[in-house]
Amino acid sequence: MNTKIKVAIVGYGNIGRFALEAVQAAQDFELIGVVRRDINNIPEELQNITVTNDIKTLGNVDVALLCSPTRAIKELAKSILSLGINTVDSFDVHSEIVSLKTELDEVAKKHDRVAVISAGWDPGSDSIIRTLMLAMAPKGITYTNFGPGMSMGHSVAAKAIDGVKDALSMTIPLGTGVHRRMVYVELEAGANFNQVEQAIKADSYFSSDETHVKQVDCVDSLKDVGHGVHMTHKGVSGKTHNQLFEYSMRINNPALTSQFMVSAARASMKQRAGAYTVIEIPPVDFLAGDLNTLIAKLV
Amino acid sequence: MNTKIKVAIVGYGNIGRFALEAVQAAQDFELIGVVRRDINNIPEELQNITVTNDIKTLGNVDVALLCSPTRAIKELAKSILSLGINTVDSFDVHSEIVSLKTELDEVAKKHDRVAVISAGWDPGSDSIIRTLMLAMAPKGITYTNFGPGMSMGHSVAAKAIDGVKDALSMTIPLGTGVHRRMVYVELEAGANFNQVEQAIKADSYFSSDETHVKQVDCVDSLKDVGHGVHMTHKGVSGKTHNQLFEYSMRINNPALTSQFMVSAARASMKQRAGAYTVIEIPPVDFLAGDLNTLIAKLV
Repeated sequence: MNTKIKVAIVGYGNIGRFALEAVQAAQDFELIGVVRRDINNIPEELQNITVTNDIKTLGNVDVALLCSPTRAIKELAKSILSLGINTVDSFDVHSEIVSLKTELDEVAKKHDRVAVISAGWDPGSDSIIRTLMLAMAPKGITYTNFGPGMSMGHSVAAKAIDGVKDALSMTIPLGTGVHRRMVYVELEAGANFNQVEQAIKADSYFSSDETHVKQVDCVDSLKDVGHGVHMTHKGVSGKTHNQLFEYSMRINNPALTSQFMVSAARASMKQRAGAYTVIEIPPVDFLAGDLNTLIAKLV
Repeated sequence: MNTKIKVAIVGYGNIGRFALEAVQAAQDFELIGVVRRDINNIPEELQNITVTNDIKTLGNVDVALLCSPTRAIKELAKSILSLGINTVDSFDVHSEIVSLKTELDEVAKKHDRVAVISAGWDPGSDSIIRTLMLAMAPKGITYTNFGPGMSMGHSVAAKAIDGVKDALSMTIPLGTGVHRRMVYVELEAGANFNQVEQAIKADSYFSSDETHVKQVDCVDSLKDVGHGVHMTHKGVSGKTHNQLFEYSMRINNPALTSQFMVSAARASMKQRAGAYTVIEIPPVDFLAGDLNTLIAKLV
């Protein structure tokens, strides 16, 4: 296949910016345009790229990378699938993935298109590791330990507390899936630190974890999008116990998320119509190149 | 689906024995029988199991686990696929996998059946990890470090040297895919150790690696089927460098191989006719259970 995959980036926040780089680095993709609300203040790196607030104006697009907040994904994916365009997202509410898949599957099949959902790193690439660990040792316990790294959800929850001007919540792995939360807060003038500390510790995002709140002068100066994971599985293959598996990574978070979304966009071109989580897709479909060449190199 | 997968174990050596345990531990499988050359000397654990030297006598079988030596796999798989039975093997000559797939694909499609090839751990589960690492960071270097553990191929090669009664070759990882070979030899009466040492070091299996040969009284007392792997990938996601990934396992070798073959046998029931390497199969297909339940648990 010599024709490139025509891709649009929808949403231009943290993930969208890195998605632009991942698309530019992938030789089998052609960037058709970026869809964002604000089409007046165009940043430097988008100057030679079509920017629109309506994906329909872009003409023929094969697949859209949905780089919008998780809460917007469901309706956005439905509307883009209805236009006859594949979608890829990094929807990250674990408990709602099956229901998202069910809804998008119906729309995707109706329009003969493919949606790949929750294609970041967790949910996403980590999900494939968890699945593989069970295929190798079906009985046993798997632990997923996150961090050290910024948790977006927890940071937003801390920032929403009265008196907090800005906040950053770091996830610190303590092993066996237990995490400490280190919350750095910049207070509004006149706010009382002790009250803020108590409110954060009482919040449902933090109340079940060991949480430490620290007051700092400038939250922004602490921001670093490095993140990581360490997964372990100790289990039983057949009737043989003590089979030990370990996986870890130390990565730039939005760079990995957007790269895996681009790989998933490629895979979307090879699936039959419907909605898929990443564990339902043959791993080799995420890669560019001739199948037998990839098999010879990787298997 | 309430009906169990009807499986036969073909070959009853090291892998076959562990395959029996893996099948017995998997509740969605029904063992129909074991196929082996010697049907007279039946070991204890096969007393209540049908043992035959002709798979055709077993009646309806969905899938056969080919636990025979790699060199026998191609013809064996062809003949069993021709009987209308799926096959799974752990064929391990990396350079011949594409050609095995091509030949079995034709036979499998002709008989509307599925062959899953090279479904051990390397090639096998490690291949999936290598593929996933590239999907996350397409540029960069991946190193696969084996061991410490016994290498069957190297042990056989050392044993074939004149004057060697028994031999065991341990693979020791030195990092960046470089390995040391520790070869333990038990000599035949009158054999000269120095000559044996030189012959082993000159053999093509050993000549390009750092090789140490040690004389021991009893090779058998050193045997331990524990093995391991440590894989690293340092690469680039999009335009972001220094993305770090690591995977390792410490396992009983035949137990893992046969367990992954059983998982692959399950997956064979869900693919369209043809021959597949494990990177061409959706990871969730290796697992038992309801799809949405697995997605909710693992994604």
